[in-house]
Amino acid sequence: MRMVDLIEKKRDGLSLTKAEIDFIIQGFTSGEIPDYQVSAFLMAVYFKDMTKKERAHFTMAMVETGDQVNLSDIEGIKVDKHSTGGVGDTTTLILAPLVASLGIPVAKMSGRGLGHTGGTIDKLESIPGFNVELEQEKFIELINNNKIALVGQTGNLTPADKRFYALRDVTATVPSIPLIASSIMSKKIASGADAIVLDVKVGSGAFMKNIEDAKSLARAMVEIGDEVGRKTIAVISDMNQPLGYAIGNSLEVKEAIDTLKGKGPKDLYELCLNLGSQMLILANKAQNIEEAYTMLEDAINTGKALEKFKTFITAQGGDSQVVDNPSKLPEAKYQTEVKSREKGYVNEIKSDKIGIVASILGAGRKTKDSIIDLAVGIILHKKIGDQVQKGEVLATIHSNQENVNQAIDMIYDSYNFNLKPVNPPPLIIDVIKE
Amino acid sequence: MRMVDLIEKKRDGLSLTKAEIDFIIQGFTSGEIPDYQVSAFLMAVYFKDMTKKERAHFTMAMVETGDQVNLSDIEGIKVDKHSTGGVGDTTTLILAPLVASLGIPVAKMSGRGLGHTGGTIDKLESIPGFNVELEQEKFIELINNNKIALVGQTGNLTPADKRFYALRDVTATVPSIPLIASSIMSKKIASGADAIVLDVKVGSGAFMKNIEDAKSLARAMVEIGDEVGRKTIAVISDMNQPLGYAIGNSLEVKEAIDTLKGKGPKDLYELCLNLGSQMLILANKAQNIEEAYTMLEDAINTGKALEKFKTFITAQGGDSQVVDNPSKLPEAKYQTEVKSREKGYVNEIKSDKIGIVASILGAGRKTKDSIIDLAVGIILHKKIGDQVQKGEVLATIHSNQENVNQAIDMIYDSYNFNLKPVNPPPLIIDVIKE
Repeated sequence: MRMVDLIEKKRDGLSLTKAEIDFIIQGFTSGEIPDYQVSAFLMAVYFKDMTKKERAHFTMAMVETGDQVNLSDIEGIKVDKHSTGGVGDTTTLILAPLVASLGIPVAKMSGRGLGHTGGTIDKLESIPGFNVELEQEKFIELINNNKIALVGQTGNLTPADKRFYALRDVTATVPSIPLIASSIMSKKIASGADAIVLDVKVGSGAFMKNIEDAKSLARAMVEIGDEVGRKTIAVISDMNQPLGYAIGNSLEVKEAIDTLKGKGPKDLYELCLNLGSQMLILANKAQNIEEAYTMLEDAINTGKALEKFKTFITAQGGDSQVVDNPSKLPEAKYQTEVKSREKGYVNEIKSDKIGIVASILGAGRKTKDSIIDLAVGIILHKKIGDQVQKGEVLATIHSNQENVNQAIDMIYDSYNFNLKPVNPPPLIIDVIKE
Repeated sequence: MRMVDLIEKKRDGLSLTKAEIDFIIQGFTSGEIPDYQVSAFLMAVYFKDMTKKERAHFTMAMVETGDQVNLSDIEGIKVDKHSTGGVGDTTTLILAPLVASLGIPVAKMSGRGLGHTGGTIDKLESIPGFNVELEQEKFIELINNNKIALVGQTGNLTPADKRFYALRDVTATVPSIPLIASSIMSKKIASGADAIVLDVKVGSGAFMKNIEDAKSLARAMVEIGDEVGRKTIAVISDMNQPLGYAIGNSLEVKEAIDTLKGKGPKDLYELCLNLGSQMLILANKAQNIEEAYTMLEDAINTGKALEKFKTFITAQGGDSQVVDNPSKLPEAKYQTEVKSREKGYVNEIKSDKIGIVASILGAGRKTKDSIIDLAVGIILHKKIGDQVQKGEVLATIHSNQENVNQAIDMIYDSYNFNLKPVNPPPLIIDVIKE
């Protein structure tokens, strides 16, 4: 087999066999196939796409290049949740204890990630004492006892995916549905998931800017899951404004606690219950969405979910008093209000710009080695559809620096107003399943 | 400027500026832009093409990466001729003395090339004593005295093109009109041509298999020439069967001599007079094709062209007696006839297969370092449209090995016959000019 022939085949729009895809992925990972051939291949994929079968083979070939987490010692169906990423996305912190409180095993492996704010691990580390470094045995034991545990990603999962991503990033081949879909799915499968709920974000604050692309990506991932025997459901949700009100690490932990108490932002609550319902269905804990939704509401209303969060924190060495006394979480020195300079109805919040402000304040990681400030961030007070008077507070900046004039201007510029009332965008846009 | 942004721009079908193209070509040649970005770019060009302006900028940027031959000390308009390559293409050996005999300066630089047979240099070296290594001064002096000289390619012409070609070859990005056109034109321009006549071959024995692609390539090159101030005319000619009868180095020299004597194959003669006419027009030596054609016929009929060939050979140290006594050229030990096993009219000769036979016999170079056998090759006796009886000779194999059974079978298999008469394909398909 020669790589040049496989590039030509893809360039001409033909399908590759499993053996051909294995040849590419293995050769690339081992370094036998040079980057310059792989990048030409990726550009050909960008233009000519892949079939359902090719995408599934591509995904599994990437999984097979690295370690695969073995969760077979955990009882029950392991349902993982993945978000394609947005601004102020606190769902994992809420969903994990929420579904665990209903008996679904939550075996979460998380990375720290580069983004506007830290990853789930960083957020949890804002809880004093919380330890994400667990031995595999301890991890399994905690899940079997409590149905929930979280560890930092260790081992060498999908090295091919890492290499592909680095190459795509510099060759303008990132925005390709088959490549994005196989990348996400390979990581979830290598992490040991039996079933997967995907939260595909769409809008100004998301990677997918339009609904059509978001649906294509969702459909692609659901089809891969189906081909490789991992039941997968994708919820397409709005990211035309930040989710909830909080953007920042400890600020989002507080918001998660509020939500588990039933006092969180309406959109965040609604999305968690939607995603959670799909998880319950995939885990065979509920027959339909209505039943699942009621179970989740009950778990929150009865305090069961909040109790599970405390158990989770305690089990991993954290101080669960933060749940009743959130002021134990890191707090920033300065709070500065961003006031409206006009009146009207909010009709746009540029989520990506808000994210950049959070990052500038120190909430995010620019490189792998950056140290992030867990205390800083932004609390929004107004979202799309809200009426605003001149002088009213749009947002509060939490910072450890006194001068935040640039942040004030950027946040204000992120808002757009209409004189007439505006309807907030629908949160759940579609659900894609096989 | 970042290469990834330029790849993205091309991927999205946008045009690159001159500065952006210079950045790519210079960065690639210097090694600052890695191959993996360039190959992704080339694949994007494959799918999204280039505009007229981009192609011209791309061509000149490649010219500027290397040496440029200065022919300004030669009087007159330097018209170069280039063939996109076929089987049995002896035109340069005929055209050079032919147009030189009419006062057009022929300053020919040739490579040895990889192909079914050697390049023009190899063919000339089959003339005893012929020397292609001339100092630049001597080269210019010979042209000013005799209007004709030929040297082996020296210096570092279009290094970018060499790098691009090596990369395209292994990334399935060879068959791209803008890339082929700019590659050919950059070499001609760097070699110092004022005007260019292109022989674009089309058919089974050529790189371009269909007329539409050949026309696109021809048009692309004529447009580049026009954009950069080098008048260019492209003749599209048939390569569905080998040109002339001879395939092989000294065999083609003999055929060239025959043609200069007015006794050559009809198709080879016709193509030379067509290409030569375009050269005369570009050199301002004739007003129109009819006038040019008559001048060329006269040069052959009066023996002026043949005389010029002798002068050319003598001036470069060769034995010009080969012209009157071609048996002084290298001759192969064995001649074996390929006889027809059926009767009918020839309706196909697979030129590429005939070329491979020539190469197997030793007439061509497999790698840069191969030694070629100047004596071996094939003489065809039947071409498309010819009537053939069972047992009649189709071709003669000239070899230095006794057993040529494989060659016999391959040549025979290259022929196809029809029971009803067949019209030979038209030789000149189109002429493309601005």
